[in-house]
Amino acid sequence: MTHIGIRQGDTVGILGSGQLGRMLASAAARLGLRSHVYAPESGPAFDVATTHTRAEYDNDEALAKFAAEVHVITYEFENVPAHTAEFLVARRQVHPNPVALATSQDRLLEKQFLNSLGIPTAPFAQVDDGGSLARAVAQIGRPSILKTRRFGYDGKGQAMVREGADLSAVFRGIGAQPCILEGVVDFAREISVVGARGFDGSFAAWDVCENTHEHHILAVTRAPANIAPETAAQAVGMASRIAEALNYVGVIAVEMFHIVKKRPNGEVVESLAVNELAPRVHNSGHWTLDGSVTSQFEQHIRAICGWPLGSTRLHAPVEMRNLIGSDVDMWRELLNEPGVCLHLYGKREARPGRKMGHFTRLLPQE
Amino acid sequence: MTHIGIRQGDTVGILGSGQLGRMLASAAARLGLRSHVYAPESGPAFDVATTHTRAEYDNDEALAKFAAEVHVITYEFENVPAHTAEFLVARRQVHPNPVALATSQDRLLEKQFLNSLGIPTAPFAQVDDGGSLARAVAQIGRPSILKTRRFGYDGKGQAMVREGADLSAVFRGIGAQPCILEGVVDFAREISVVGARGFDGSFAAWDVCENTHEHHILAVTRAPANIAPETAAQAVGMASRIAEALNYVGVIAVEMFHIVKKRPNGEVVESLAVNELAPRVHNSGHWTLDGSVTSQFEQHIRAICGWPLGSTRLHAPVEMRNLIGSDVDMWRELLNEPGVCLHLYGKREARPGRKMGHFTRLLPQE
Repeated sequence: MTHIGIRQGDTVGILGSGQLGRMLASAAARLGLRSHVYAPESGPAFDVATTHTRAEYDNDEALAKFAAEVHVITYEFENVPAHTAEFLVARRQVHPNPVALATSQDRLLEKQFLNSLGIPTAPFAQVDDGGSLARAVAQIGRPSILKTRRFGYDGKGQAMVREGADLSAVFRGIGAQPCILEGVVDFAREISVVGARGFDGSFAAWDVCENTHEHHILAVTRAPANIAPETAAQAVGMASRIAEALNYVGVIAVEMFHIVKKRPNGEVVESLAVNELAPRVHNSGHWTLDGSVTSQFEQHIRAICGWPLGSTRLHAPVEMRNLIGSDVDMWRELLNEPGVCLHLYGKREARPGRKMGHFTRLLPQE
Repeated sequence: MTHIGIRQGDTVGILGSGQLGRMLASAAARLGLRSHVYAPESGPAFDVATTHTRAEYDNDEALAKFAAEVHVITYEFENVPAHTAEFLVARRQVHPNPVALATSQDRLLEKQFLNSLGIPTAPFAQVDDGGSLARAVAQIGRPSILKTRRFGYDGKGQAMVREGADLSAVFRGIGAQPCILEGVVDFAREISVVGARGFDGSFAAWDVCENTHEHHILAVTRAPANIAPETAAQAVGMASRIAEALNYVGVIAVEMFHIVKKRPNGEVVESLAVNELAPRVHNSGHWTLDGSVTSQFEQHIRAICGWPLGSTRLHAPVEMRNLIGSDVDMWRELLNEPGVCLHLYGKREARPGRKMGHFTRLLPQE
């Protein structure tokens, strides 16, 4: 496949009107591009896009018009319906490609794909009904985590399977739908690799970062992560192999567990297991807006336009904190704090659990 | 005057649809604000603004509607007609204030104002007709520069008065309009102070930068400027006094000549003379987008919203180059150059002398 030549003044189509779409549209503007955001619901991205279409993802007429008006298409979320992706792919280049979408939409496919590349994950088993859940629990053990194969995010679609739990109740509780059962990984920290693969096959990652979640939602990201340099190199290598295998174009985020084991002889061994993929710009890469030469949003736009990737060099060690729900009420104090870079998404209502903004702080160089 | 409380989701009104308005609108979006750009001509800012109005600056009906829909008003250019400013000031807070506009719109007023603060400028004399031009030349000498009092930029509205020149021809050539005659300053370099004054009277400047012009258009800015630290402090002090005297709110740019004289005893003496003021974000501050914790665009938005100013700390020494006219054809090579941050304004036609974009390079720390 060759890339159509995208140039200044051309239009990037973006599916999804959330904050990721918003930051993608702004990054496109920096590079002289127009943006057209398509989403069923009005959202923060509509405010900065050159054009927007409010229509459902199964509205073929609206999709056809959208495809005709843009030069390349991307998305801000991995749950783009398969029909929508297929419909658009037939009309315009869509990056990342539908294989990446399909793989990351299904936790079972995703883990099978990762293991096929020799990349470790938590142990897992397929669960289709009560019977297979019992067999899976026998194989994986307890405690373990039952997850829906599809549409899970921020801890949604998950249930712990503890000692003594009634398996059929757990399965019903999660909606009696196709699931996987995952073993619990005893990790030291959660890290992520945010990187990008260009149209030419080049791969560039930012420093591996370290994530802290609260109530299953990302709270803090720090870069670089506090891990051995060889482990960081290994993590980036995994992300690169994943992107290569998917013939991926754009920014990809790979969440991993960092596992630290002490052997009886006192030797410390670090290892990694991939938790999940996001075929898109990612919350754990937001610090790149203020802390790196090229932001993840610009990098994604460069990649999907068939342009060369930019430098991922850090300005300094950096910390990003999400503003969830009423956290955003401290915006004025944050504006007052020297060296803090504040980002607000312009959402009117600060519902609990809703990502309202984030802020970044460059840390003193050591 | 107290500031109306601007909050996330509110709308910043911007007069002017050029690249400065575009970058202001994007900075507003980062801070959770909506933007409404008002201009007689469609331009790059329309592509990123939440809303835009295309109407003349004397269209009171459109101005009234604009004022009613926004929460605070600013502008990207100093030649806002006095009527427009007055009309809007009666309805909404407008920053910077009309006194700053009026002062910077008239080269004579501007220099008189500066001298009244004890701030040196080139020697100058008022020219209203052929007779006063002859007297001015007798006073200032030759070569000197005849400039229209109003509407000059990028070298437009200027004529050299050399030995032997026919004064009435020069005066007719420049349109026989109110002018000033300026003495030629023998400067070592042109520098500018880009700083901001907050609603609370605080003042914060970025490092003084050094500018190179080609064909009267800014070509390169480097920060920090290659001047003595005491001279830099003096330059920032002048900008601060100017902003204070104007009761200014927002980003101000003060262009200065850096004069280096060697005394007969070998002693080197540095001094400054202010060339002109820009009551707005300025091309010589574009490097702050990539080279500083807070960009001039964000700082301007913070100030006009009555919010605290952000940190002006540099990441590293930095160089910004404008892409003028067909310079923009090298965009692809620039994307390929490691560490270059490229900004394109999305203008369709690359006319000679037209600012099409700029790029920034962080230089190695010494």
